[in-house]
Amino acid sequence: MRTQDDTIMSYDQGENEFKNWIVAESSFKRKYQGKCEVVMSLGNGYLGMRSCTEESYLGQVRNTFVSGTFNKANANEVTELPNAADITGIDIFINGELFSLEKGTFSDYNRALNLKTGELSRTFIWTFDSKSYRFEFKRFVSFADLHLIGAHIKITPLDNDSNIEIKSGINGQVTNSGAQHFEEGEKRIFDKAYLQMLQNTNESNITFIHNTYHEFNSKDVEVKSRFEMDRRKVLMLYHCEVPANATLEFSKISNLYTTRDKAYEHLSLQELRDLSIEHLKKQSEKGYQLLLQESILNWEEYWENMDIKIDSDNAYDQLAIRFAMYHLLAMAPKHDSRYGIGAKGLSGEGYKGHSFWDTEIFLLPFFTYTHPEIARHLLEYRYHTIEGARKKAKENGYRGAMYPWESAWADDGEVTPVWGAADIVTGKATKIWSGFIEQHITSDVAFAVWQYYQVTNDEDFMIQYGYEILLDTGIFWSTRLEWDEKKQEYHINNVVGPDEYKEHVNNDAFTNHTARWCMENALKYHDIVKEKHPGLYEVLSTRLNLEFEMAELKERYDKVYLPQPNEDLVIPQDDTYLSLKEIDLSKYKNQEHVGSIFKDFNLDQVNQIQVSKQASVVMLMYLLEYKFNDAIKKANYQYYEPRTLHDSSLSLSTHAILAADIDNLPLAYDLFESASRIDLGPNMKTSDHGIHAASLGGIWQIIVCGFGGIRMLDGTLRLNPKLPANIKSIEYPIHWHGNPLKITVTTDAIDIINKGDKPVAIEIYGEKHQIENQLTFKTVNSVL
Amino acid sequence: MRTQDDTIMSYDQGENEFKNWIVAESSFKRKYQGKCEVVMSLGNGYLGMRSCTEESYLGQVRNTFVSGTFNKANANEVTELPNAADITGIDIFINGELFSLEKGTFSDYNRALNLKTGELSRTFIWTFDSKSYRFEFKRFVSFADLHLIGAHIKITPLDNDSNIEIKSGINGQVTNSGAQHFEEGEKRIFDKAYLQMLQNTNESNITFIHNTYHEFNSKDVEVKSRFEMDRRKVLMLYHCEVPANATLEFSKISNLYTTRDKAYEHLSLQELRDLSIEHLKKQSEKGYQLLLQESILNWEEYWENMDIKIDSDNAYDQLAIRFAMYHLLAMAPKHDSRYGIGAKGLSGEGYKGHSFWDTEIFLLPFFTYTHPEIARHLLEYRYHTIEGARKKAKENGYRGAMYPWESAWADDGEVTPVWGAADIVTGKATKIWSGFIEQHITSDVAFAVWQYYQVTNDEDFMIQYGYEILLDTGIFWSTRLEWDEKKQEYHINNVVGPDEYKEHVNNDAFTNHTARWCMENALKYHDIVKEKHPGLYEVLSTRLNLEFEMAELKERYDKVYLPQPNEDLVIPQDDTYLSLKEIDLSKYKNQEHVGSIFKDFNLDQVNQIQVSKQASVVMLMYLLEYKFNDAIKKANYQYYEPRTLHDSSLSLSTHAILAADIDNLPLAYDLFESASRIDLGPNMKTSDHGIHAASLGGIWQIIVCGFGGIRMLDGTLRLNPKLPANIKSIEYPIHWHGNPLKITVTTDAIDIINKGDKPVAIEIYGEKHQIENQLTFKTVNSVL
Repeated sequence: MRTQDDTIMSYDQGENEFKNWIVAESSFKRKYQGKCEVVMSLGNGYLGMRSCTEESYLGQVRNTFVSGTFNKANANEVTELPNAADITGIDIFINGELFSLEKGTFSDYNRALNLKTGELSRTFIWTFDSKSYRFEFKRFVSFADLHLIGAHIKITPLDNDSNIEIKSGINGQVTNSGAQHFEEGEKRIFDKAYLQMLQNTNESNITFIHNTYHEFNSKDVEVKSRFEMDRRKVLMLYHCEVPANATLEFSKISNLYTTRDKAYEHLSLQELRDLSIEHLKKQSEKGYQLLLQESILNWEEYWENMDIKIDSDNAYDQLAIRFAMYHLLAMAPKHDSRYGIGAKGLSGEGYKGHSFWDTEIFLLPFFTYTHPEIARHLLEYRYHTIEGARKKAKENGYRGAMYPWESAWADDGEVTPVWGAADIVTGKATKIWSGFIEQHITSDVAFAVWQYYQVTNDEDFMIQYGYEILLDTGIFWSTRLEWDEKKQEYHINNVVGPDEYKEHVNNDAFTNHTARWCMENALKYHDIVKEKHPGLYEVLSTRLNLEFEMAELKERYDKVYLPQPNEDLVIPQDDTYLSLKEIDLSKYKNQEHVGSIFKDFNLDQVNQIQVSKQASVVMLMYLLEYKFNDAIKKANYQYYEPRTLHDSSLSLSTHAILAADIDNLPLAYDLFESASRIDLGPNMKTSDHGIHAASLGGIWQIIVCGFGGIRMLDGTLRLNPKLPANIKSIEYPIHWHGNPLKITVTTDAIDIINKGDKPVAIEIYGEKHQIENQLTFKTVNSVL
Repeated sequence: MRTQDDTIMSYDQGENEFKNWIVAESSFKRKYQGKCEVVMSLGNGYLGMRSCTEESYLGQVRNTFVSGTFNKANANEVTELPNAADITGIDIFINGELFSLEKGTFSDYNRALNLKTGELSRTFIWTFDSKSYRFEFKRFVSFADLHLIGAHIKITPLDNDSNIEIKSGINGQVTNSGAQHFEEGEKRIFDKAYLQMLQNTNESNITFIHNTYHEFNSKDVEVKSRFEMDRRKVLMLYHCEVPANATLEFSKISNLYTTRDKAYEHLSLQELRDLSIEHLKKQSEKGYQLLLQESILNWEEYWENMDIKIDSDNAYDQLAIRFAMYHLLAMAPKHDSRYGIGAKGLSGEGYKGHSFWDTEIFLLPFFTYTHPEIARHLLEYRYHTIEGARKKAKENGYRGAMYPWESAWADDGEVTPVWGAADIVTGKATKIWSGFIEQHITSDVAFAVWQYYQVTNDEDFMIQYGYEILLDTGIFWSTRLEWDEKKQEYHINNVVGPDEYKEHVNNDAFTNHTARWCMENALKYHDIVKEKHPGLYEVLSTRLNLEFEMAELKERYDKVYLPQPNEDLVIPQDDTYLSLKEIDLSKYKNQEHVGSIFKDFNLDQVNQIQVSKQASVVMLMYLLEYKFNDAIKKANYQYYEPRTLHDSSLSLSTHAILAADIDNLPLAYDLFESASRIDLGPNMKTSDHGIHAASLGGIWQIIVCGFGGIRMLDGTLRLNPKLPANIKSIEYPIHWHGNPLKITVTTDAIDIINKGDKPVAIEIYGEKHQIENQLTFKTVNSVL
């Protein structure tokens, strides 16, 4: 019998068709419940839910978010995704005792998320007061019907007759850590069975319509019901006598609509309420199992487009990449382009649902290569926010599009909070500078647009949105430059680069290089648009004042200072980094928790040490790799990696890929393992605030772009696989210019199948090839 | 060893000086925690706190309220007392394990509130993982310093060295059942030790300033500290190694100020913040014990003015009356007349801190007779709300002062919520009619003013406030009347009387009789003011348009229909009650939970049955008893009591007193016992939403006005004791016209000591007496 003291995460339990598809825990510990709430969270891009247990425990975080429903609870707070009413909580009283795993004992405990089907399940036997009960809970958020959530519960008293009461419904008493975004709305019960509760965001004025319905399916058990309304709650109470070994079985089918839903914009609130109830009645008639099957079918289509097969000595690698893709799909807004992906997806309150550069640099490659229609949505979102970016530029004395560091609803502009945690020295809250001076986000957006365009060839996107972003971000950087009279060059002073352990630096290498790259691209696409799309050019010319801006940009372009390699080929991260003092970092490199350096130093002090959260220069070498040769890459990697604490979940994946690039495959594999353990690993406290979305995108990039070797280099598809020793083969799909390719990399061969209509040009280990239908390329072992 | 399965309430454990002063529980059960949170709640009239355990449990309701700080969280809700940040919660980790009584085992558990000192204490031994620890927690809300809360904690590892961590501070993530009233304000830590957090109500714009400070007093234990800020939280973390049998001991001294505080109105927010921190520094220097002593001294003064000694066969009776007085004092705003007392005092979210007729009819007699200065504050509050009452009259097409059924901040007017629980038939929320048609509140206010005046002779109050209330309430009723052409008399139709199981009735006996009594009083005091206070008369004459209004009132007064006794001497409760169908009520009379009749009938159906929540006519016989003879009282009591379910906590006390009046002393005593068990009794779920303030006032009235026999009858002090068989004597103090009297009633004598300056006229068993200094009156046993 397992007890609460066993290790609880177990990485795969699947047999046959579900082998390497299952994330599970084999016991329950209250203090670790945040872990499974997050790593087993459910979602479909429209809505996301933490996978809390049905019964309640202290410290539980019941979260339900609907993408894009941002609200500012009050003037002192920044806008965030509001935590909608909960339908996962169910109180179960057995013989008058509220069921909880903290009472009595339990055995045969298993909670599992099936990544292939999107179904969460939990089974165990609970013994209390010398009587035992078998429990089975199942739940899913439908991938076929964005509004639907299904749950199914079975309770079997073993060898004893039991009185069972169920209290279940819709609970709107939840908050975002104390901030309440909702005004209480109307509560109704239709036909004594269909519960409806409305709640309305207090600033953005979005009405959420929650409906739920319970159906009992047990033979031999007569169930009596009544209902109850409380403050922000509407509940059903069920009561029955369950004979020994009979099973009380019921399903709870719920849905959730909001007045922000694009598909229902034309409806009045009353019409949407009616529609939602009709929807629930119709759907719930199908029953849990059929609704689940519909969802699974939908998941299957996505898996066909993205599943990766890894033959590794470590089976966990296969699970890790599926885990990453499951969550990337669960958080991605497939249905709407009016919002992005939050840094924690839809799985936690961390970062408030805001979009960062995480989307463009870490998540987008996955979508661009596997689900270009979703990538396009995410980039369209950045286009929708361009007015906010222009406003931000203007407020700061610049022109063009200066993207907000944190972004929420399109109209919001910059939404980065201004104040953070307490300074250990002064006792005052510290100022968060990112919203003011972490400016490389503008380059990141431009980069992602360009990358998407190169990979997909989506000219329609470029005409509608892409060219304008490329031009206007270039214009921003041109106006952002600061003339240094002495050196007769343009500088970019007082910024935060990707390495957030260096605030207020001048000429951050990443920022300067990517800024000039933006200007370069603007010049290039200016000429292309002018030539290829004269109608569009006319529009943009007026809108962006192109004649003036491009002349100025062109004049400045050549005079932008780009930090250059020194005699050791090391590019200085910024004007002062290489001259800062060095300390022994081994204590902080081999840490159990990130950020341990702040136990010894405050941020002002960290600013004065050669230590990086993640290395700006290494990130630069990855993004603009075609601009740097192998010797420079290697020198910089070897300089900066030892100084990097990887205290950002964004750091590991980039460093893993670059390690592969410089042929340090053992390190690359180690960093991959570390990256894949950020959420899925045995540290039970890392995921409490939500999943690390960027890290998941990074895991995909390590496998496909790192080990798998796929890159888009200045418009060219390049394949240069580097398999670490314990990985025998990787099979992965990508799209290139609309052609689906299936690439299989083994230790001695590369096999590419082109399922598309057109031949695809590719460079493999420096050789140019055309893939018509299939190409097999024999490699020498030593290369890999 | 006691375990969680023992019975947990224990009524008195005091020895010597604390005999019959202690309310205790001897074990802990999570599901019953609401009980002790409330019955052991702390307060000083300025602030009130539920007595939650330091450690957290599911279902715990951490409430801290400051009188008068009403806020409307959003447009859909009514104004209520906001739940301020919590300082009672403390997380204690022992060897890494979060302490909770739900883990391991505990013994020697005792939690006790000392009613005399106002100190809450809790002690037990906790055993976990084969190691034991002794815990001692103490807490008080200062009666000497309205802003101060003290806590003291001792933890002793028994025979084992332990690593102990304490996480404690200010937590603003609490809500009112999901409604968040506060915007997050600034958080600061001064001198690395004094925590400050501001929060601001989002509508009424009141800033709450919370400060807290921890001091560790343990020898031999080195304590390391650091601090932490989180969303709406500021915390200290302490960490230490405690050797076996050493005691970790610390105090947490906190204070709370708001920008609504009258005493600090002249200060800017910054000045108030500075003052509050200075106050905390100064007070915390005194240490827990001295601060507690200062509070106890203050309590002692109050106890001297009010303590009642009961010699009963049942010692619980003595405790019950002290319990009532403790809570009445803890909830009473001694310091301010800008607000009233909520129906749950300051001990729960129930009824949202709103004042009902509970104050005037049930609570005020206690204050009027024992602490007239507090009674005056409460009546001044009604004067402050008179503009709202006039507005309500106007909106309803009347004139004069139509008091709101529920009242909050003076400007708010009517604050009764409009929608209540779900109708069991339609599934829609039911409409709450009280705010519209439960109109007797206006008579209740006038009655309390008059009663206060008669008992205290406070002419200053009458000139400033009282006369105007008496006149304007009379005017309201005069304009409220409806002329019945057929009967040629004035009716009052479509009301709810004190019996809320009859909605939309015509000519409710209580409403009609007290309305005409108001008109009678208005006429009488109109003439008195005109003669005695010509200056005031001039002012009021203009303000209230007295010439016109009093002429109309006088003309109408004689034509008000007053329901009269029928051939059986029964006064019909309203036009239809006596003709409604009768059913067997025994099932609902002997119920465990109130309101059980609604399991079988909805309110529409209950409206059609001769069944009462509380009897309107019995209430009338108590208030205006000098208008009805004994035969009528008896007939009505005997008719209505069997039809009354006492489903209101207001019902029992009135019926107990009337039972004594008609010499049914066994029933009177039974009803007293029932009343005193509403909060203090063994039903562990009755107090979850807060203490039953009106019932506590009723308990005092049963003892003093019922068994003790004191009444003010149309201006005369009357004494007519009726001791039930098991009560041997009652000794109680009252004030009459400013003279403190001490009255001792035994089975064969009445002894009255007049400590005042003037002789007091009194009628004892119908005989008129003057009390100079002392009067002893021998009674015949049979009379009692």
